[in-house]
Amino acid sequence: MMTYIAPIRDMQFVINELADLSTINTYPIYEDATAELVTSILDEANKLASEVLAPLNYSGDIQGNTLKAGVITTATGFKEAYTQFVESGWNGLHSNPDFGGQGLPALVSTAVSEMWHAANMSFGLCPMLTQGAIEAIAHHGSDALKAVYLAKLIEGTWTGTMNLTEPQAGSDLSAVRAKAVPNGDHYLISGQKIFITWGEHDMADNIIHLTLARTPDAPEGVKGISLFVVPKFLVKADGSLGERNDVYCTSIEHKLGIHASPTAVMVFGDKAGAVGYLVGEENRGLEYMFTMMNHARLSVGLEGVAIAERAYQQALRYAKERTQGREMGVKGGERVAIIKHPDVRRMLMSMKSQIEAMRAVAYVTAAYMDKALAESDTTKQQAAMALVDLLTPIVKGWCTEASIEITSTGVQVHGGMGFIEETGAAQHFRDARITTIYEGTTGIQASDLVGRKIARENGATAKVLLAEMSGVATELANAVGDDCAAIHRAFTDSIHALTEATEWILANYAQNPKQPSAVAVPYLRLFGIVTGGWQMAKAALIAQAQLQKGQDPHFYEAKLITARFYAEHVLMQASGLAYSVMNGAVSTLALQEEQF
Amino acid sequence: MMTYIAPIRDMQFVINELADLSTINTYPIYEDATAELVTSILDEANKLASEVLAPLNYSGDIQGNTLKAGVITTATGFKEAYTQFVESGWNGLHSNPDFGGQGLPALVSTAVSEMWHAANMSFGLCPMLTQGAIEAIAHHGSDALKAVYLAKLIEGTWTGTMNLTEPQAGSDLSAVRAKAVPNGDHYLISGQKIFITWGEHDMADNIIHLTLARTPDAPEGVKGISLFVVPKFLVKADGSLGERNDVYCTSIEHKLGIHASPTAVMVFGDKAGAVGYLVGEENRGLEYMFTMMNHARLSVGLEGVAIAERAYQQALRYAKERTQGREMGVKGGERVAIIKHPDVRRMLMSMKSQIEAMRAVAYVTAAYMDKALAESDTTKQQAAMALVDLLTPIVKGWCTEASIEITSTGVQVHGGMGFIEETGAAQHFRDARITTIYEGTTGIQASDLVGRKIARENGATAKVLLAEMSGVATELANAVGDDCAAIHRAFTDSIHALTEATEWILANYAQNPKQPSAVAVPYLRLFGIVTGGWQMAKAALIAQAQLQKGQDPHFYEAKLITARFYAEHVLMQASGLAYSVMNGAVSTLALQEEQF
Repeated sequence: MMTYIAPIRDMQFVINELADLSTINTYPIYEDATAELVTSILDEANKLASEVLAPLNYSGDIQGNTLKAGVITTATGFKEAYTQFVESGWNGLHSNPDFGGQGLPALVSTAVSEMWHAANMSFGLCPMLTQGAIEAIAHHGSDALKAVYLAKLIEGTWTGTMNLTEPQAGSDLSAVRAKAVPNGDHYLISGQKIFITWGEHDMADNIIHLTLARTPDAPEGVKGISLFVVPKFLVKADGSLGERNDVYCTSIEHKLGIHASPTAVMVFGDKAGAVGYLVGEENRGLEYMFTMMNHARLSVGLEGVAIAERAYQQALRYAKERTQGREMGVKGGERVAIIKHPDVRRMLMSMKSQIEAMRAVAYVTAAYMDKALAESDTTKQQAAMALVDLLTPIVKGWCTEASIEITSTGVQVHGGMGFIEETGAAQHFRDARITTIYEGTTGIQASDLVGRKIARENGATAKVLLAEMSGVATELANAVGDDCAAIHRAFTDSIHALTEATEWILANYAQNPKQPSAVAVPYLRLFGIVTGGWQMAKAALIAQAQLQKGQDPHFYEAKLITARFYAEHVLMQASGLAYSVMNGAVSTLALQEEQF
Repeated sequence: MMTYIAPIRDMQFVINELADLSTINTYPIYEDATAELVTSILDEANKLASEVLAPLNYSGDIQGNTLKAGVITTATGFKEAYTQFVESGWNGLHSNPDFGGQGLPALVSTAVSEMWHAANMSFGLCPMLTQGAIEAIAHHGSDALKAVYLAKLIEGTWTGTMNLTEPQAGSDLSAVRAKAVPNGDHYLISGQKIFITWGEHDMADNIIHLTLARTPDAPEGVKGISLFVVPKFLVKADGSLGERNDVYCTSIEHKLGIHASPTAVMVFGDKAGAVGYLVGEENRGLEYMFTMMNHARLSVGLEGVAIAERAYQQALRYAKERTQGREMGVKGGERVAIIKHPDVRRMLMSMKSQIEAMRAVAYVTAAYMDKALAESDTTKQQAAMALVDLLTPIVKGWCTEASIEITSTGVQVHGGMGFIEETGAAQHFRDARITTIYEGTTGIQASDLVGRKIARENGATAKVLLAEMSGVATELANAVGDDCAAIHRAFTDSIHALTEATEWILANYAQNPKQPSAVAVPYLRLFGIVTGGWQMAKAALIAQAQLQKGQDPHFYEAKLITARFYAEHVLMQASGLAYSVMNGAVSTLALQEEQF
């Protein structure tokens, strides 16, 4: 029952037809990334995802991790699966070839990562966090740090973590208290970190903790935080592992979901002090941390896509297998599979259409990342980077919020069986629930979107995106068929709604930022839905063109209809959300605390 | 941390000012139900709920039930709590005084039941199902059956169950296969039933299973199903307990939530045949079952209100206690409680406003039930009954769907702590997830609404309700203040949206019921939101009037602002939902199965 097969045809559609791999492929650094190579990569990744990782998803949920004397034993099969993952070279897909990476576009590694997260979300978190550590060291570490750590992390024989949160410092990292005292060529780190994903485990030889701490003379607040590399095992000059460092897992959390992913409380320096190496300069840790964080935010948004896809596949399978009731309007007919029932179909379409929109936006953002890295024209490069910056909180915030709804719908398709844990649908719902919280809650994403990404630049990039959307709407107006006309109507309304809401944000942020902040989450949701509508509208145009050429009607008709469903059942929320943004701040803020 | 205090002031507001207890109180059968008596009942119920039931909620979740040799041991404290519940006379609050009930209005018992469900949803299910059994026997049982079973069930020393579902017969009860063979004054029942809530436990002396089965010559389908009383222990002529009947629990489910409520697989007649007594006439079981079911549907809707309230209280407490970050716009200020942050406030307002709207609609429906029972004028009686019939699927479908969103928001308010089971927020989210499934999924409710409640009578009752809403809108237009003006604007738009959508349903149901069925759930959601808006608009009018009289400004200002928030953040969804209803059927149904 609980299998997963990567939706390769859909992934290819997004990669080639929406995110335009062929353009990425023209950049010299991505000249190897042809459509053919990408197809073979997707096929190979699917084998590992469907045959090795997916079967461990439910058993890992049941079994969880065991902690004894600071050592975590992962669920049965995880260690072997991780070894296979590393030996097949999957960890370094997008990484720098100078350190053993394969240097493939983020567009490709994003699709592959979707498979890991969908097959086994707990498992997928481990390489995801390693990737954050790689980015931080690659961008900000000294050559010496790079030489010691990068190749092993890229290979995956060592894994990475993000040690940020402390009990009093969650969304507000300015409250970090962990200490770092200089001691020769290194620092001695002490303090406690919580919620450390894969902070301790038995799958890799070493664990490299990217850790925020304060030096003795550091200023208060965010400007006094530095970033350190704190390895579990110290590394000798020859690269072999030396002493156990003074950083230990003291307990693991009992969580709603992602049971197979250990969430550790880490204690640094309880004995002699944990040896840590400064990344970059002192007091710039928060800035460097955002390098890890931005990558991680996109990855968590992708987790939203992935877990929603997993839930959809399971619901679809059940809907095709489960017999109940008779087909509406067919008198005296046989009992039918529940996919015949109109409301079950609505639920499946709702899942499918939102997943396709989310996947498209996530992959297109990855393609902008590739352009931002590969483009030599500065103007184009900066334009691509600005879009990545704008889209990051949207991918994170919107795809994760939607994943809760979609996995909930997945439970609902199963009826009573959905509530029974052995069915597996409930696990996806539980697993999805973390995605709107870690790596910055939806509120934090929305605040980033409204403040840093919209107001700070007076909406410049948002306007570029809105103009791009309007271009697609114009094309739709000229396209043939009822479906395109229906999509055009809802999409045009939604662009109007997003434009008005953006103008309201811009007009109000400077004088009273509390008001836009009070409606920032509805604004993010609006932006996400319309951005998804933009990609679905593009998909509809492509599908209509392909159908007119007689190409693969089975596939492209489905694309067109799914885009129409999205317009009529998701995009139509845009005007109501814009109404909330433009009218709803006062009532949000009006009560006194005692009136709650 | 995980306490619950009944929101008595809010309950009184709904009971007295929205549902108008004083009118109910004028009916002779409800002449005792004065506002004063009701207040003292609420206070007493709150003591049991907050001091006895609420503290068992989390421990019950952790511990669950144990099944050994057909006998279930409930979690520590449940048996004693249930004894206290029965001894204090809470079980028969709304039941017939002829059999020991207290005969209080449903309006009152609804408020009290909200407390049980909020304090401990698993616990509250047991008396809820007993109530269904009482209704079925009281309405359809012979005098002999009533004499043997009613008093004990009303007292609560015996509990009741609904034995409907079989593995192949869930939403489609026509597929029921359990057999009932006549055998003297009784029948011998055999077969398997699944998902039987509180099907076996140790809290009561006897368990009375209301069971659907087929007699040997029964016709196929729904017209061949009969309803039987199958007691766990046979009852002797003197009313004392006799032999153990041949009905046993063979296993219990491992569920996402409501862990303390045993969900049993029941096997009937594995040995000699389970003795069962026919309720009413043969082959009319499904009709009788709806007597239980309609009551249970309203109760499950109320569970949605209750679990949302519980989640809100927990989130509110956390938001007032948890310190993180500084207040926006205050430079260099102290760290503040997160309730100061605009988005946290939005989340709390979203929870609070929807809960108030849901509670109002649920209680007002109960008040219509009271009128339908007590009114001697046939026209008025039938009008009240028609409203109960119309509102039942709305209360069930809308309040439960919203409860998933609200309990999810409750998790979100807690940030990372929300994902940790010990916090307790996740339990409410897990518990709420069943409410859209049992006693008829949201799809079944929507189908009932669109087909039986709207189309069958050509929208007659819906039009009555819409006219009533328009009257409130007119009053709002004449009310003073910005808040009423803002509510008027959104409420008027939403009435328009619901009217248009209803007309579309009526225009399309007869010729092609598949289309309205494909958009029945968005229609139900629309209806629920607007019905909630109607009560919030009434609340705003009352609040505005009281404020002008200088009454309790702290309370009534909050009511006014909360109604405005609801208008600007919830009601504004109405036009988009109407758009989906009127445009979205074609795309929902267009894909071939292989295209999913």
